[in-house]
Amino acid sequence: MCSPLTFPQEEQDLLLAAAYVSDAQYNRNVPFKTSPRTIRLYYFYNHWTMQGATYFFICVDLSLALFEEPALFPLPFLVTSIAELLCLTAFFGRLVHFAKVTPQMVFWKDTKNICIMVTIVLTLIDLIIYGSLKAANIHSVRWSRALRPVFLINFPESRQIRRTFRSIRNTLPDILYVFLLFMFSVLIFSLMGLKLFGDRGLKTVEGSPYFTNILEIMFELYVLVTTANSPDVMMPAYEFNWWYSLYFITYTIINTYIFMSVFLAVVYNNYRKHLKNEIRKLAHLKRYKMIEAFNILKVKVGTEFVVKEAQWKRLAKVVVPDISTSHLELLLRISDEGQKGHVDKTNFLRLADLLNIQVVTINIKRHPLEAWMPRVYQSSASLLVQKMVRHRIFVWVYDVIILINAIFIALDEKIHFISDAEWLFLSLYIIEILLKLYTYEPRAYFGRKQFWNWIQGCSENGMFNDCVLFPARKYNSQQILDIVLILRILRLLRVIVSIQRFRVIVTTLINIGPTMLTFGGLVFVVYYVFAIIGMEAFHGKVRFFDLNFTAPDALLCGNPALKDSAFARDRYCRNNFNDLASSFVVLMELTVVNQCFLLLAGGFSLVTHQAAKLYFIGFHIVVVILVVNIFIAFILEAFFVAYSLEKSEVETAIEKKIQELGVGVQEEDVQDGKLPDNVDAQDSAFRGDDEDNKRKALKGLHFRIASRKYRTVDTLLQQMFESEIAPEDEGPSLDEILSFSSSDMYPKNPNFENSA
Amino acid sequence: MCSPLTFPQEEQDLLLAAAYVSDAQYNRNVPFKTSPRTIRLYYFYNHWTMQGATYFFICVDLSLALFEEPALFPLPFLVTSIAELLCLTAFFGRLVHFAKVTPQMVFWKDTKNICIMVTIVLTLIDLIIYGSLKAANIHSVRWSRALRPVFLINFPESRQIRRTFRSIRNTLPDILYVFLLFMFSVLIFSLMGLKLFGDRGLKTVEGSPYFTNILEIMFELYVLVTTANSPDVMMPAYEFNWWYSLYFITYTIINTYIFMSVFLAVVYNNYRKHLKNEIRKLAHLKRYKMIEAFNILKVKVGTEFVVKEAQWKRLAKVVVPDISTSHLELLLRISDEGQKGHVDKTNFLRLADLLNIQVVTINIKRHPLEAWMPRVYQSSASLLVQKMVRHRIFVWVYDVIILINAIFIALDEKIHFISDAEWLFLSLYIIEILLKLYTYEPRAYFGRKQFWNWIQGCSENGMFNDCVLFPARKYNSQQILDIVLILRILRLLRVIVSIQRFRVIVTTLINIGPTMLTFGGLVFVVYYVFAIIGMEAFHGKVRFFDLNFTAPDALLCGNPALKDSAFARDRYCRNNFNDLASSFVVLMELTVVNQCFLLLAGGFSLVTHQAAKLYFIGFHIVVVILVVNIFIAFILEAFFVAYSLEKSEVETAIEKKIQELGVGVQEEDVQDGKLPDNVDAQDSAFRGDDEDNKRKALKGLHFRIASRKYRTVDTLLQQMFESEIAPEDEGPSLDEILSFSSSDMYPKNPNFENSA
Repeated sequence: MCSPLTFPQEEQDLLLAAAYVSDAQYNRNVPFKTSPRTIRLYYFYNHWTMQGATYFFICVDLSLALFEEPALFPLPFLVTSIAELLCLTAFFGRLVHFAKVTPQMVFWKDTKNICIMVTIVLTLIDLIIYGSLKAANIHSVRWSRALRPVFLINFPESRQIRRTFRSIRNTLPDILYVFLLFMFSVLIFSLMGLKLFGDRGLKTVEGSPYFTNILEIMFELYVLVTTANSPDVMMPAYEFNWWYSLYFITYTIINTYIFMSVFLAVVYNNYRKHLKNEIRKLAHLKRYKMIEAFNILKVKVGTEFVVKEAQWKRLAKVVVPDISTSHLELLLRISDEGQKGHVDKTNFLRLADLLNIQVVTINIKRHPLEAWMPRVYQSSASLLVQKMVRHRIFVWVYDVIILINAIFIALDEKIHFISDAEWLFLSLYIIEILLKLYTYEPRAYFGRKQFWNWIQGCSENGMFNDCVLFPARKYNSQQILDIVLILRILRLLRVIVSIQRFRVIVTTLINIGPTMLTFGGLVFVVYYVFAIIGMEAFHGKVRFFDLNFTAPDALLCGNPALKDSAFARDRYCRNNFNDLASSFVVLMELTVVNQCFLLLAGGFSLVTHQAAKLYFIGFHIVVVILVVNIFIAFILEAFFVAYSLEKSEVETAIEKKIQELGVGVQEEDVQDGKLPDNVDAQDSAFRGDDEDNKRKALKGLHFRIASRKYRTVDTLLQQMFESEIAPEDEGPSLDEILSFSSSDMYPKNPNFENSA
Repeated sequence: MCSPLTFPQEEQDLLLAAAYVSDAQYNRNVPFKTSPRTIRLYYFYNHWTMQGATYFFICVDLSLALFEEPALFPLPFLVTSIAELLCLTAFFGRLVHFAKVTPQMVFWKDTKNICIMVTIVLTLIDLIIYGSLKAANIHSVRWSRALRPVFLINFPESRQIRRTFRSIRNTLPDILYVFLLFMFSVLIFSLMGLKLFGDRGLKTVEGSPYFTNILEIMFELYVLVTTANSPDVMMPAYEFNWWYSLYFITYTIINTYIFMSVFLAVVYNNYRKHLKNEIRKLAHLKRYKMIEAFNILKVKVGTEFVVKEAQWKRLAKVVVPDISTSHLELLLRISDEGQKGHVDKTNFLRLADLLNIQVVTINIKRHPLEAWMPRVYQSSASLLVQKMVRHRIFVWVYDVIILINAIFIALDEKIHFISDAEWLFLSLYIIEILLKLYTYEPRAYFGRKQFWNWIQGCSENGMFNDCVLFPARKYNSQQILDIVLILRILRLLRVIVSIQRFRVIVTTLINIGPTMLTFGGLVFVVYYVFAIIGMEAFHGKVRFFDLNFTAPDALLCGNPALKDSAFARDRYCRNNFNDLASSFVVLMELTVVNQCFLLLAGGFSLVTHQAAKLYFIGFHIVVVILVVNIFIAFILEAFFVAYSLEKSEVETAIEKKIQELGVGVQEEDVQDGKLPDNVDAQDSAFRGDDEDNKRKALKGLHFRIASRKYRTVDTLLQQMFESEIAPEDEGPSLDEILSFSSSDMYPKNPNFENSA
């Protein structure tokens, strides 16, 4: 490859403009250097292989915890440390690459990059110390392992997770004040409790003194907020005198209900403010980059600046190298309405959005049987079958069959008649699938977005395996059998889909599914850090023995300190920090918060020391007060946006244009199999036009417009915001955009509509 | 009293107009008959004695449950039934009175009235049946007692509680779909659980079979949503195989987190929609009534219709009979700016709001010592003391003293040194109060809204009693002592008040306090109904024996069926339905939901039958899914409105005008004791005016403008909405207003600002 400096100026401009467009298309929000050499580097940085490699190394780095002591699958220290060194090198290389393509000012002002560098250095120091101590046979703590999620968060690729973290960070000051107030209220109630109950000589169920130590009281009252020890903590006082229940009821109302709601209000309010600010920033940045690209390529034609058609085509080819000619023609049709041979500014600015719209080929989707033997397929008997299958009653009949099947599943399988019935159901389902494949086009039926059909197909397949193959192998593979069992029951989901009202709720839930994975990432990061700390602190304190193991230790979780404790009595031994998988399950249990919280804290306090309680309280504050509230805020927001859009249409300018030109299909139509008639109608309407030769190239190519229902909150909000920027608006400067803050988001004069 | 028909027409008009204005002032939302006879009746209906009597009878009726079997204070059936008959007569009389003053159409279309009538009839039938059966010595069920809260809800006076109930009713259809989906998901998971674990032969900790009965599984999984039995329900499967924990984790994520958030989203969304609709309705109704009043009294002067000053004054006198002359002059000053001798329409429409603004007399608030011995009070030493007390450091010093006091409280009281220190603190606090009374005007210091000063005063007084009086009486009255102890600790609240950031949160919380009482009413109604049902069903099944009672039954709660159960082991005997007070505590515990849920359901199932579980699940659905979510929605809404107003000013037209004329004082000023200087400055600025003789009458009279912070959500929203109606807008007709529905509340084109 020759040096980029030898390229002619025009080629360099094109590459630069394409970099801007590609950035706008994928909503990347970092500026890059515009020198010719770095443009190539920038393309390479954003190439999927480089991104894939980064994710691979992050995965390797995080999964090392499975192989290090305390390990699920132990590996020698040498192997894991070499793997970690490799990962660190890869991260460092990626960072250097990033530094080469971004302006220096931006690079060093970005805390992400500083974070990564500090973490790399700290990890190296820790590795060296631990390694040398290990060589001298001294056991020490691998504390830097808790820092590993930093890499997952801070690389520019995981923008979503980082956004959630930023949301949390911005919420912290506000949360802190409420939290202090909350702790103050706990303190006041503790003092009251001490005065009220301390001198009464009351005893708890276990016989220990009740409400005599201020620290104990504060812990008990904090746990009461999580509702874990209610009403146990109240019973001794309540038994003594009915009036004392008022103390606990007041406490619960103030701290559990009011304060927890205030936490949610603060988190949600900040989440909303922050989300809007981010979206405003992204939309302005996109606009800014598209204008930059336009300014590079523009030429003056008549009175206005435009981009020539040839230039425009070359640009699109650079941005999406594998674009087909017919696809490009279609895009041009939208962008250059008047066939003037050039694209004006307004249309050029839409290019990034246009490239994001999926293009589908439609009219080849004729049923293969129809092509193969048209006479038979179009015969009246065949048409009757097709009409029957398309009819609503067909769906209802099968819903009833599934429900009967569900009742059979619930009944005992050992009765011979019932296990035979399973064969009947299987054949009914296979007949259904065959009939549907006969009626609908197979590729449309198993289309990429036909979620429900896939579920059905899978479950049918699973059931087939279950009934036909497994009796032969006779339950030899436990886990596969379990999965098949689950799939068999998932058939029931089909009944829901056929009821329209449910479909809306389910659709919204599926719709927010991908973004929910972001929270999966967030929770994973928090869990990982706490799991590493927990493993270092509590490893081996509690052991789990197989149920059939009858050693005297087995009932005490291998620790004599747990004798007679509720922890051992309720068989909680499996809840331990002895490996990563167990730790995650324990943390999940703690997130749900219940009796378990107290038992665990109590149990681990017995075997280690009182500081264990701090670990559990810390986890509760981080996860329940911050993470769970952000999660609830996210779901609330998604549903509120869905509700506020229920009665209105949000259509972007592009969608309008696509609809006007008749080259778009709604995703709903594709899903419901209504498509062919629809498109035919449009086709015939089109034939009257005078551009027949152009049409031939485009034949069957259509834009697939995502249904409003299937768009995420982010996309919807961004579209709304963009539709509110005037097309001629140049927007603020880059520096202004990068320093947008969420505090100036509220309208100065709230009105009745948006106030609440 | 002579017949109202003998009044001259003019007098009747005035009364009618005054009825309209008074309705608008108090936001009553029922239209009334406009014939001369009924106007008098209407005044009588709205008189405070009649309203007070209604509330009295409602209280009596509800408290009857305390005296009926199972009773806290038993009374014979004859006494309670006579009391109930009296109440029913009173309710019927009130209803007849209401029917006389409202148009027949409106009366019979109102479900409230139908509800009351049906309930009265049902209660009478029940009373007769129960009484005759009792006479024949047959025991039957007083089922109509559960209907008593109907009276509390349905009388027009408890508008707030009814609104919350309407909110719930409107939410029901939406909630129902989500609930069905949720139950469906529980069903699917139950089937999966049955298939996965049913054949494994696993045992629970108690040794009973695990996941073998589909109904048991569904109950366990439903309880898992409340997090009450996590992780106990998971442990057997988890011990068997690590992978099975994924089943429970998936279940928890979907049902506990996602579905519960969806419930909140649905409830909150409906709450918001409904709240706005109600406020729109109220605002339009107010406008409508003020216009009606204006139309009755208007006369033509020049080109426009106005109300003459004399007429206006008589109107105000009828609406507020005990208004002072100077107050009336002040109102007139605002309404008739140009001193033209009449009030125009725009100003007339504001009358209802004007009457709602509190008027305070200010400049008599000079320190009595200053009046008594000005020389001494104004001496340099005295001024120095005053300056010192007003200084911030003075507050800080006392905050530190309180904190030290708190630490002393936490320490053990038996040490002699510490109980002596209490005397020191007491004298320090008394010195503080004396100094403050010396510096600030006493009546201002203990003003009606000086919440914090009152708390301090009370606690000081309590402590004084505690230290001085009680040692003499030597702990003879347990309950009074407890209250004093609590007051002593409430002093700590003062520290919070002196930190500005906390003050904002605390203010918002105090601010929503009164509306929270509405929820108290709602919760009371739901609890009452469930308590009555619970008392009928579970009365006497579980008995509580005094702790020192050593009968063998005492440990089994008097019921052999509870032998070896966790219910008896954890000493839950006091949790029973044997009287109203105990029932309320049990229901409160169930609201918090925890281990207790399972224990109670299990315990009561043992002693009665499986249907007890249905009772507990039903309660959980009603209280946790509906009531608690509405409560959270309310707190969220209050905070969102507070946040969205943080940076903006919402000022009504009246407030602007009052400020322009310089006759208003902000409530914040009154509270901070900054007032005197402030008002003096305004006074001197005023003296330049040429209306000195008028001023004399008004001297010291000022409107007290409620601080924005201290307004409720309803008031704020109503003010916002009103400021958006144009002054000349006549608004929709009465019929249209009464049939407003919340479904047409959403803007057709949501934009970026109000969408999320």
